[in-house]
Amino acid sequence: MIHPTAIIDPAARLGEGVEVGPFSIVHADVELGDGSVVGSHCELGHPAAAGDVGPLRIGSGALIRSHNVVYAGSTFGDGLQTGHQVTIREGIEAAEGLRVGTLGDLQGDATFGRHVRLHSNVNIGRGSRIAEFVWIFPYVVLTNDPHPPSDGFHAGVTIERFAVVATSSVVFPGVTIGEGSLVGAQSLVRDDVPPGMIYSGNPGKVLAPAKRLLLSDRSGPAYPWRRHFHRGYPDDVVQGWIAEFAKPGS
Amino acid sequence: MIHPTAIIDPAARLGEGVEVGPFSIVHADVELGDGSVVGSHCELGHPAAAGDVGPLRIGSGALIRSHNVVYAGSTFGDGLQTGHQVTIREGIEAAEGLRVGTLGDLQGDATFGRHVRLHSNVNIGRGSRIAEFVWIFPYVVLTNDPHPPSDGFHAGVTIERFAVVATSSVVFPGVTIGEGSLVGAQSLVRDDVPPGMIYSGNPGKVLAPAKRLLLSDRSGPAYPWRRHFHRGYPDDVVQGWIAEFAKPGS
Amino acid sequence: MIHPTAIIDPAARLGEGVEVGPFSIVHADVELGDGSVVGSHCELGHPAAAGDVGPLRIGSGALIRSHNVVYAGSTFGDGLQTGHQVTIREGIEAAEGLRVGTLGDLQGDATFGRHVRLHSNVNIGRGSRIAEFVWIFPYVVLTNDPHPPSDGFHAGVTIERFAVVATSSVVFPGVTIGEGSLVGAQSLVRDDVPPGMIYSGNPGKVLAPAKRLLLSDRSGPAYPWRRHFHRGYPDDVVQGWIAEFAKPGS
Repeated sequence: MIHPTAIIDPAARLGEGVEVGPFSIVHADVELGDGSVVGSHCELGHPAAAGDVGPLRIGSGALIRSHNVVYAGSTFGDGLQTGHQVTIREGIEAAEGLRVGTLGDLQGDATFGRHVRLHSNVNIGRGSRIAEFVWIFPYVVLTNDPHPPSDGFHAGVTIERFAVVATSSVVFPGVTIGEGSLVGAQSLVRDDVPPGMIYSGNPGKVLAPAKRLLLSDRSGPAYPWRRHFHRGYPDDVVQGWIAEFAKPGS
Repeated sequence: MIHPTAIIDPAARLGEGVEVGPFSIVHADVELGDGSVVGSHCELGHPAAAGDVGPLRIGSGALIRSHNVVYAGSTFGDGLQTGHQVTIREGIEAAEGLRVGTLGDLQGDATFGRHVRLHSNVNIGRGSRIAEFVWIFPYVVLTNDPHPPSDGFHAGVTIERFAVVATSSVVFPGVTIGEGSLVGAQSLVRDDVPPGMIYSGNPGKVLAPAKRLLLSDRSGPAYPWRRHFHRGYPDDVVQGWIAEFAKPGS
Repeated sequence: MIHPTAIIDPAARLGEGVEVGPFSIVHADVELGDGSVVGSHCELGHPAAAGDVGPLRIGSGALIRSHNVVYAGSTFGDGLQTGHQVTIREGIEAAEGLRVGTLGDLQGDATFGRHVRLHSNVNIGRGSRIAEFVWIFPYVVLTNDPHPPSDGFHAGVTIERFAVVATSSVVFPGVTIGEGSLVGAQSLVRDDVPPGMIYSGNPGKVLAPAKRLLLSDRSGPAYPWRRHFHRGYPDDVVQGWIAEFAKPGS
């Protein structure tokens, strides 16, 4: 159902069963996949300052909560979910299953692999490249300017698959956080983090292999987290993870 | 006055003299006490993903500023005040006089004693238990997952009465911050903080008794703050504090 | 164009060619300069809790993006730009060219010189004095209460011209950050920072002259940044900077 107070441009392409809440706005060059739900007070397809940046394409089954602003010029795979008060600028390419928490601030020009989870209030600078199954927690900043303010020297952050960046950490421009690594809370990440390692502190450093951390009940290692944490992922993905860790010696 | 553009479900129970601003939405299972004022662009009683979580009950004299989203399934005592752009999920039980600053993000399933003050942009994780007269400052995160992401091991933060958590601090899961203690700005709180102590740093540690800190004019100790700071609290509460510190030797 | 759903008080003084987006509210005592554009879901001239605080005056050519709340009782020079979801309380005096990023939280009673740039999610406490050409990055907090909560001892932060405060730093009450200095990311600034120096860490300290930092291509010093960074500043200002650094020995 489209709420009667919503303002939908007739040129917007809404799929089957799309719902749009009260006082929301959908601009012309927006494509919303089947079954998507848009909350109240949103604005989708906001024009970019740069001019024509192409359409906003959102796949099927999206849940966009209230007070979101999503610019034109981005593409999201199926199953996008956003919290409240989220701002997403142009130039995002996101695969299926992206979740952006409340108050998220995606500044544009960034890529996301499958099923990336951004908790509340994450600040993703331009040029960030985030691989599948990454987790980022509140108040994390992915920076891109080595000597702010500067021009022509920007370099985004790269985060490899399964990596976790805990709350209130700052990642320096051009840094790569390796596959399956864990950045501890409130860390200042100035260097590349090797795969599978814990990095922590201000200034931060590599501490130990992440697999040494045990779950609270000491039933096994906390990392790689996909060994024990499966909530919200597709069945085929979870079955793959289960098979991976069922192998002898894994 | 209910603004003519506001959308109020006829089943909502609004007390005497309630005001609702332009473009705000009040869902069916909402109870708003006498004299409460709701600003513009709010949504109260937002349905929870979990299904029926019961009503949203807000006591009398509430002031809910613009662009708030408050879910169903929470109860607030009289005198609630929120800033702008606040998000409050289901499962909050709050006594009278709670104040939540602008951009606050209460993730649900938390309890608040009387007259808790959250400054702007505080992130309260599920399972937090915050006692009466606590202060929390901007960009503080109360976490709950010891090995993110995990399931079944979450443990909220407990903050005892009169404690103060200064800006940009992160509190680890399951930590208890003792009565009247002070967590310094930008601290990483990994351990319990004993009552009445200062805890500070990244990594943080216990530094000294809080009562050793003097007010800027050296007229007396800055803590316990209730000795000198009374603004905004009920008369009977303040009279009790005055009596407490008028005793010889206090 | 004023969108037909916008609510404009007839007493508001809108200049030539002002645009106001859908579902936005402009109160009576608001003055918006020629050519200003206001996005959707905004509220301008919000009444202050303190009562009559005078008008909200915004110069010409302003761009106020969606979901902003700006209180009565402030004055902004020409060319104001704000991001989305910004909250600005009463008592701001800002010269021309102020930019406030998405999710900014200006708590009122602060002054800004020409062309100050606040990136996303900056928290500016009351009493802050920010000189011209300053840069402040995400999640920075300018505090003002030396012993929170206290009354009568507040002291704002002073930031001198051309200074840069990098992301996630906290500045203590009463601190002065000197002209052209650089505060590194995630720093706890407890002391005055001398002009032209780098200050960094938690706890922070003075590290070295800022001019020792080289641009990434080693073409010259990164600071003073006005030597190489000119984007978005008026021509006459940029010409002055170019002349300044063209002098022999500069």
